[in-house]
Amino acid sequence: MMEISLTLPSGEQKKVPAGTTVAEALKELVSNKERKQTIAARLADRLVDLSTPIDADASFAPITVDSPEALEILRHSAAHIMAEAVLALFGTEVQVAIGPAIADGFYYDFDRAEPFTPDDLARIELKMQELAAAAAPFSRETMSSAQAIALFEKSGQSYKVELLKDLGAETVSLYRQGDFVDLCRGPHLPHAGWLKAVKVIKQAGAYWRGDEKNQMLQRLYGTAFFDAKDLKAYLHQIEEAKKRDHRKLGKELELFAVSDQVGPGLILWQPKGALLRKIIEDHWREEHYRNGYELLFTPHIAKRDMWKTSGHLDFYGENMFSAMDIEEVSYQLKPMNCPFHIAIYNTRKRSYREFPLRWCELGTVYRFEKTGALHGLMRVRGFTQDDAHIFCRPDNLEEEIFNILDLNLQILKAFGFEHYDIYLSTRPEKYVGNDEHWEQATTALKLALEKKGLAYEVDPGEGVFYGPKIDIKIKDVLGRSWQCSTIQVDFNLPERFEMSYTGEDGKEHQPIMIHRALMGSLERFIGVLIEHYAGAFPVWLAPTQARIMNITDAQMGYADEVYAELRRAGVRVEKDLRNEKLNYKIREAQMQKIPFMLIIGDKEVEARQVTVRLRNGDNLPGMSIPEFAAMIADENEAGRTGACNS
Amino acid sequence: MMEISLTLPSGEQKKVPAGTTVAEALKELVSNKERKQTIAARLADRLVDLSTPIDADASFAPITVDSPEALEILRHSAAHIMAEAVLALFGTEVQVAIGPAIADGFYYDFDRAEPFTPDDLARIELKMQELAAAAAPFSRETMSSAQAIALFEKSGQSYKVELLKDLGAETVSLYRQGDFVDLCRGPHLPHAGWLKAVKVIKQAGAYWRGDEKNQMLQRLYGTAFFDAKDLKAYLHQIEEAKKRDHRKLGKELELFAVSDQVGPGLILWQPKGALLRKIIEDHWREEHYRNGYELLFTPHIAKRDMWKTSGHLDFYGENMFSAMDIEEVSYQLKPMNCPFHIAIYNTRKRSYREFPLRWCELGTVYRFEKTGALHGLMRVRGFTQDDAHIFCRPDNLEEEIFNILDLNLQILKAFGFEHYDIYLSTRPEKYVGNDEHWEQATTALKLALEKKGLAYEVDPGEGVFYGPKIDIKIKDVLGRSWQCSTIQVDFNLPERFEMSYTGEDGKEHQPIMIHRALMGSLERFIGVLIEHYAGAFPVWLAPTQARIMNITDAQMGYADEVYAELRRAGVRVEKDLRNEKLNYKIREAQMQKIPFMLIIGDKEVEARQVTVRLRNGDNLPGMSIPEFAAMIADENEAGRTGACNS
Repeated sequence: MMEISLTLPSGEQKKVPAGTTVAEALKELVSNKERKQTIAARLADRLVDLSTPIDADASFAPITVDSPEALEILRHSAAHIMAEAVLALFGTEVQVAIGPAIADGFYYDFDRAEPFTPDDLARIELKMQELAAAAAPFSRETMSSAQAIALFEKSGQSYKVELLKDLGAETVSLYRQGDFVDLCRGPHLPHAGWLKAVKVIKQAGAYWRGDEKNQMLQRLYGTAFFDAKDLKAYLHQIEEAKKRDHRKLGKELELFAVSDQVGPGLILWQPKGALLRKIIEDHWREEHYRNGYELLFTPHIAKRDMWKTSGHLDFYGENMFSAMDIEEVSYQLKPMNCPFHIAIYNTRKRSYREFPLRWCELGTVYRFEKTGALHGLMRVRGFTQDDAHIFCRPDNLEEEIFNILDLNLQILKAFGFEHYDIYLSTRPEKYVGNDEHWEQATTALKLALEKKGLAYEVDPGEGVFYGPKIDIKIKDVLGRSWQCSTIQVDFNLPERFEMSYTGEDGKEHQPIMIHRALMGSLERFIGVLIEHYAGAFPVWLAPTQARIMNITDAQMGYADEVYAELRRAGVRVEKDLRNEKLNYKIREAQMQKIPFMLIIGDKEVEARQVTVRLRNGDNLPGMSIPEFAAMIADENEAGRTGACNS
Repeated sequence: MMEISLTLPSGEQKKVPAGTTVAEALKELVSNKERKQTIAARLADRLVDLSTPIDADASFAPITVDSPEALEILRHSAAHIMAEAVLALFGTEVQVAIGPAIADGFYYDFDRAEPFTPDDLARIELKMQELAAAAAPFSRETMSSAQAIALFEKSGQSYKVELLKDLGAETVSLYRQGDFVDLCRGPHLPHAGWLKAVKVIKQAGAYWRGDEKNQMLQRLYGTAFFDAKDLKAYLHQIEEAKKRDHRKLGKELELFAVSDQVGPGLILWQPKGALLRKIIEDHWREEHYRNGYELLFTPHIAKRDMWKTSGHLDFYGENMFSAMDIEEVSYQLKPMNCPFHIAIYNTRKRSYREFPLRWCELGTVYRFEKTGALHGLMRVRGFTQDDAHIFCRPDNLEEEIFNILDLNLQILKAFGFEHYDIYLSTRPEKYVGNDEHWEQATTALKLALEKKGLAYEVDPGEGVFYGPKIDIKIKDVLGRSWQCSTIQVDFNLPERFEMSYTGEDGKEHQPIMIHRALMGSLERFIGVLIEHYAGAFPVWLAPTQARIMNITDAQMGYADEVYAELRRAGVRVEKDLRNEKLNYKIREAQMQKIPFMLIIGDKEVEARQVTVRLRNGDNLPGMSIPEFAAMIADENEAGRTGACNS
């Protein structure tokens, strides 16, 4: 019998007879304990079932429940079990479509005339648990496509038949567990019994093959874990995320609205939200001024021809709005600010002496997104980029990138984001500019990251066609990642717009151009902020920092005085002097997540103080108005500088 | 002989025989001295020549050279004299079109193959002076239209023939002086000798009858005065205005630019201009916050249907850009902010308790203007309104208008405008809303103006169709008027958008809506500011407040220190440490109209001071850095509050 050599993760090589299954090999190769936790294996570069026979030399690694790949296998199997459960419960009225694992779970698409009700979902979940308890094994079969088509035609599963016909493969693999059989590449769990924690989450509509011309199916989402406590933690996080949903909080705190009359994806900033936005914008401008940036303002439209010159019409056209005609000239709502900054650059000749030019703008751009893709502040049709363009010489590049990173982290820190994933994307296959410039620029980005002491991953070939870039994803309090900052070198636009500067040598050169946005989109960033803080913004950001409440009408006069004095001191204060119970007023202020409630009863009037209640229910000792104003000023300062994110 | 009764301005009645000419009557009615200054008369409601016979009872007032109507008559006659001069000099190669008096002078349009050269203009002016010296009388003739047509056909003046044919009158009047005869209603000077001060100013193109499909004519502009010193003063003012031209200064001071690539009428704010704009915007927001306004941010586009609801598509459509399509829905670049503010109002039910809502936005709007009408910052296609909408109950109206006026004057004062013309425009013939509401609102506007102690003129019937309004024109340092602030009550939009609030009575009511813009358009306001200050902005507005200059390289270190310290102290400071002569640096800083030059030589280094030179060439005594920073802070504060406009 031929022997096969397996290379284990440790580097150790082991021999097994050819045709040995993974399960059999495991008995030889790993401890009993590890084997019991193993649900599949990586053989060479393939994930395979335990039942897979090994027939060639290869690397070999068991996939245990702790392996990064394990959850996907579990969830893929869970999708099959969901389909099995649905067929068991709803029988012939249902056709099954497809059911993959996805980021946080899995789904399966079903064609059924009746919509699944919440009760149905509960029944399906229960049935899945039953099937899991029965622990039917998953078994793999291969057969000819014709056989498979015959099989699914017989069971009336016409979506599978269509898939098989389109696939046009000679042979295909099917997986069977219990009474259910599905077209599938695998791998799967050894048996359904591994499914110890499963939840059917929701129902949604989905077109067959994602094409709106096709049949609308019902997609059932679920998730699964190897352990009930992981599922519980996940569901808790989902609940937490729901509570923090910026659309819900945006409405409750009256931060922003979307109106059907205005149009989807177009944000109306209500007074509180607009104030929050102003605080953020003021801070941003202030920090940029301090860091040697100059502000620009540019229009929201330009001749469409400019976007030909920039190349956007060619490579970005489908994200752009349709043209407007003015006196027979075509104009375009801007999807980007860059060409405007370049137009300002090109208003006159430039010299190396002026460099670096650091030009920033809170520029509102409009990009086409499908209605279905719109989502609160996160995905919109109009948004404000905290844009800047730096024009410099090649030898300024590293220092400028370093300065940008410095400002970037400082600003993110002020908003409470101190955990990031940083990516450096290098030259893709198709690119403009010469290799030497790419090399220099990529090196400059690396050196700047390293000098700043930042850990980063290289994404080889993931740079934009016009230059290398650094992307920063921020992590919110729930550990979710959000694409945020981007710093991009551009060899393309300076060429297209024939930009130049007179160098020290008296000759004309092409400047280096850096695009960068730190918050990315103000709308999206504020969306993330709302969820990060669950609407309970730190003092320096809170649109209302304090609300004054009297206990009885007797304190109205003093309450008005306090109000006027705090306004004069620059505190963002409101008053609630309604003839309502104090507890009622407190509850409302807490719902509005106002950091400080200033409670005024007779005692406070007499002492010319306020009692300060925090939104978490704690009380501070009574203090005078100047003391309170000074505390707010300190909090503002500490917040802005990121020294405190209370 | 019949007698006619003339009522003089004094109220006195005088009899003259019927058929007496004005000139004859004057001999009886006014002093010799006044008669010698009289060039025409107002008879009933008509202006008439001195030669006009009086044939009915009427009011009678001499028009002397000091009368407000006199200049227009002089200039109209000067236009005739210009045509006479041109025909005299260029004979049959010229056809004359029309020649009216205008605001600051007059023009005449000529059809001539060759363009008039500057030399031609000088010759024409000289010829006009000659003709004036010859003092040919102006004489009026009336004849049938047919006779007049024959006359102009004979002299080959086909434009006059066309005018006469279109006019289709039975009889027409012609005026003749010397060899020149023109179709004209009059009145005119008694004779050309009154033209004592005349200037041919420039040549420009103009289409016959203002229609671009017609022949392009040459328009010669001129002006005329009764007195040479008035002309001199006027020309001086023109020179002064040229020097202050915001387009010229905008370029020299690098405040803003327009780019052909971006498109005409779309302003690119360069760093210095953007900083100026930011200072203005910050001040505006600050003052609004202090005055109980809340900020909004709204998008630049909305569904086109919203503009149907608002009525803008019907009555404002020709000023709007063409539509854009998004997923088969028509969208519109906004020409107004109002419907967005209403959309925010309508996001939920409103109660009288919330009133007044004072919502403001620096909202950038886009309106179509013909390319030919565009002019620097004054007339553009994209501009930012300092917009606000107040929603209140009818009984809040007077107080709200008073508050608006208060804030309005305070803001204008801070920018150095303390002279205004104020107009109250009342109900026009076509209007919406009921009479009682118009009455109440108009009264509220009046009472607020009077309470604020403001003089105003009533413009009867000049209100917008949707409500009465107050307009404020500001006067700049050259005495020129600029339409600036507007405060408008609106009975229309609340109805169209079905706005309501719950009143104290628990019932739904329609709110009062006030539109107001104090600066009007930021672009235009800044244009006026530039001309008002000739670019030499007061300290609190100057984008660069101080520029540091060293005398030799020996002071570079200390100069850098001064720079850093002043930046930290919030002074907008630049440094010019080039190896150039001090005088050269000073000249450049003066050209840039920077308020303070901080000169640093060895003496200053030693004393740890700066020598402060003002842009007018004066020097302040040497001072320390903190002293200088404190002076700037004082100037900022004094400027913002309008206490000083240095």
